Amino acid sequence: MSALPLSLSEVLSKRFGDRYSISQALREQHGRGESHHTPAIPDAVVFAENTQEVADIVRLCAAESVPVIAFGAGTSLEGHLTAVRGGISIDLSRMAKITRISSEDLDCTVEAGVTREQLNTHLRDMGLFFPIDPGANASIGGMTATRASGTNAVRYGTMRENVLGLTVVLPNGQIIRTGGRARKSSAGYDLTRLFVGSEGTLGIITEVTLRLYGIPETISAALCSFESVEQAVAAAIQVVQLGIPVARMELMDRGLIKAVNAYSNLSLKLEDTLAFEFHGSPAGVQEQVEMVAAIVAENDGRDFEWANAAEERNRLWKARHSAFYAVVSQRENAKGWSSDVCVPVSELSGCILKTRELLKDCSVPAAILGHVGDGNYHVVFAVDPNNRQELDEVASINKKMVQYAISVGGTSTGEHGVGTGKIAYLRAEHGDAVDLMAVIKNAIDPAGIMNPGKVLPN
Amino acid sequence: MSALPLSLSEVLSKRFGDRYSISQALREQHGRGESHHTPAIPDAVVFAENTQEVADIVRLCAAESVPVIAFGAGTSLEGHLTAVRGGISIDLSRMAKITRISSEDLDCTVEAGVTREQLNTHLRDMGLFFPIDPGANASIGGMTATRASGTNAVRYGTMRENVLGLTVVLPNGQIIRTGGRARKSSAGYDLTRLFVGSEGTLGIITEVTLRLYGIPETISAALCSFESVEQAVAAAIQVVQLGIPVARMELMDRGLIKAVNAYSNLSLKLEDTLAFEFHGSPAGVQEQVEMVAAIVAENDGRDFEWANAAEERNRLWKARHSAFYAVVSQRENAKGWSSDVCVPVSELSGCILKTRELLKDCSVPAAILGHVGDGNYHVVFAVDPNNRQELDEVASINKKMVQYAISVGGTSTGEHGVGTGKIAYLRAEHGDAVDLMAVIKNAIDPAGIMNPGKVLPN
Repeated sequence: MSALPLSLSEVLSKRFGDRYSISQALREQHGRGESHHTPAIPDAVVFAENTQEVADIVRLCAAESVPVIAFGAGTSLEGHLTAVRGGISIDLSRMAKITRISSEDLDCTVEAGVTREQLNTHLRDMGLFFPIDPGANASIGGMTATRASGTNAVRYGTMRENVLGLTVVLPNGQIIRTGGRARKSSAGYDLTRLFVGSEGTLGIITEVTLRLYGIPETISAALCSFESVEQAVAAAIQVVQLGIPVARMELMDRGLIKAVNAYSNLSLKLEDTLAFEFHGSPAGVQEQVEMVAAIVAENDGRDFEWANAAEERNRLWKARHSAFYAVVSQRENAKGWSSDVCVPVSELSGCILKTRELLKDCSVPAAILGHVGDGNYHVVFAVDPNNRQELDEVASINKKMVQYAISVGGTSTGEHGVGTGKIAYLRAEHGDAVDLMAVIKNAIDPAGIMNPGKVLPN
Repeated sequence: MSALPLSLSEVLSKRFGDRYSISQALREQHGRGESHHTPAIPDAVVFAENTQEVADIVRLCAAESVPVIAFGAGTSLEGHLTAVRGGISIDLSRMAKITRISSEDLDCTVEAGVTREQLNTHLRDMGLFFPIDPGANASIGGMTATRASGTNAVRYGTMRENVLGLTVVLPNGQIIRTGGRARKSSAGYDLTRLFVGSEGTLGIITEVTLRLYGIPETISAALCSFESVEQAVAAAIQVVQLGIPVARMELMDRGLIKAVNAYSNLSLKLEDTLAFEFHGSPAGVQEQVEMVAAIVAENDGRDFEWANAAEERNRLWKARHSAFYAVVSQRENAKGWSSDVCVPVSELSGCILKTRELLKDCSVPAAILGHVGDGNYHVVFAVDPNNRQELDEVASINKKMVQYAISVGGTSTGEHGVGTGKIAYLRAEHGDAVDLMAVIKNAIDPAGIMNPGKVLPN
């Protein structure tokens, strides 16, 4: 929409040289995530290399009321990266330094562009890991901005629980630090949690202090198949309600197994499946496994198939992580549309049943998968982004699924964020609290330059 | 300061009858917490019975720019309840309904005036408990407003991690609901966490949705004494660093043991002591105990003294919980001054050493105690509130202790909150982020009627 003022373009070009670009290909790459949302390309892209540079860019843009959109690894699923009002995409992928690791305090500070795989590769030799794992190799900054979670959240929590502090560039270019390194604090408003999940609409996160964990002494993974999704979900709910501290508990329906087998060249049984991972001491893991096995048997689950060797486990989770791409690859030139709701665990069975009814006559490939230990599940659709009818059909299913989740006390998005895709549901979920969100947004970003058109309804 | 407009007084009196009071004794009781801070009495007290009443009171006060201060159980330690600019104290203690409990979802919703003991008594027969335990029998609303934690936080987290949603009356009298019942959500700004720890300065919390936990199959408690505080702390740090999931790990120095023995009629060994509690399955607890015992032995700790029977355990923790009162009761007519810092665990030993140096020549009774698993510890002083010299002496020790904690990456308050007592340290801890807190405060409460004079510097 807004064309870039020539003066701003010149200043940025002079300051950043070939790290400033208006190339069409680069702009296109920065105006989309990985999903079906219609791209909207920014007017230019700048690659920032440190917090001060981000602050300088934001200050220059603020002076001209030009929008700024932070870009990490580009793995967004709800349109967060689309430059719906033009502006500058600030690419943080070169801010990829792991600044500090303390194995004594089990924490670290990283630049926003560090990806979770990069961090975990770095940590491995120290016997540490960072558990939050949304599947994609997202940047830590992006994961923080969308309040990401994923497969390990049932045991380790989400970004909300695992971010201790932040460096943030505010809309006026000011740099602040929030939180700290103490495990807990009652000193003032929780700005850290305000920025976690704010999707770049209140400021740009440039550094993140994270909690770390020791790699468990024993890690065990297993697959377990069921005759029906309902039985798999029933088993999962019992595991949660008994408080068994499983590290992962993932639902993959028959349709997903088929897609994953084809995509990752596996031969998993074509049945509705729960995938587990257990962390702990040898005795602790053994105890968890016995309790879970009893619950699985009660729900007519088949025997566990173990994947205990690290390579087997990695193959299993890699396959699970590629679920989105596996479903999409079932059709040529398709795009993925990943719906994402989260409900109280007691409502999970009913929600999934309802969703399966909605999918019965769906004309495009779709599969159900989910972090069922948290009550969070997705439907991934493979859509033709140029087929209006298909998009409308999926939008209608998505809408009914989200409305149902909200009606039983759930949320329109468990982990993907609002972006542009879930704005329409925000008021149904939060009521007048949305007005308070807008008060905060307007106070912090009165000119509305931070990732405009995202999170809040107009 | 501000005298109450007669018209407001008449309206409130008419509406609330004998639930509205200007009695001197009642106002005095509502103008102080439990610590040394100079009381400041409100102009009137209203006992609210539901959220709508709170909203009506706030709306009436807003129209006249009269301050409102929420009052729960009166256990504040940092001057949160002092009516430093006069106004109305809204007493929420009659809002004591447990509205909803779901054993399936392990959550509940309670009115703000429910106390933690009331809640746990109610939950016991259902096999559930709410772990956050600041010692005092505080109200859940007050614990939420100060981001409380306490002895169990090392295992179960703080109010930050355990509040799922809130009902809040905003400064204009609007009622909003934040959060929800899903275990996680990425839908919009985290208003829940913004109100958790906001100390009544952004709105009044009237209902809280909490996570609950199943009562562990096995609970075991033990005391272990050491030759020095340094050795006790070294052992505690190793327990944390190895990730042993102890449920409680409390430091009580020799001075505290003496006070507690006298106050609670016990005969604990007069040594620097760690008190542990272990939760889990029989085998899990056994495993934790063995690991902790090895660490204790390495640090020259004496054998465990077990307190496994429920009554023994209750006696032990009751004694620990009365630590504040035990220290204060060592002097007639004394008031307690409880300092509260929290640092990265790697800095804990140095901080406590520094604190012990500061205490060497202290002229008033003082004892060190702490939730050392989180890096959080307190010094409780028994002060004569009318002796300026004493207050200055303790203030000076407190200041040095807080400044040191901040200098090593810690916080000025781990769990007591800012109130009036820690305002002076907020900028040293958070730098320019304090300005952003003020932007948020001014946007939500432009007239400044919500618990004025607390949290933020003028």
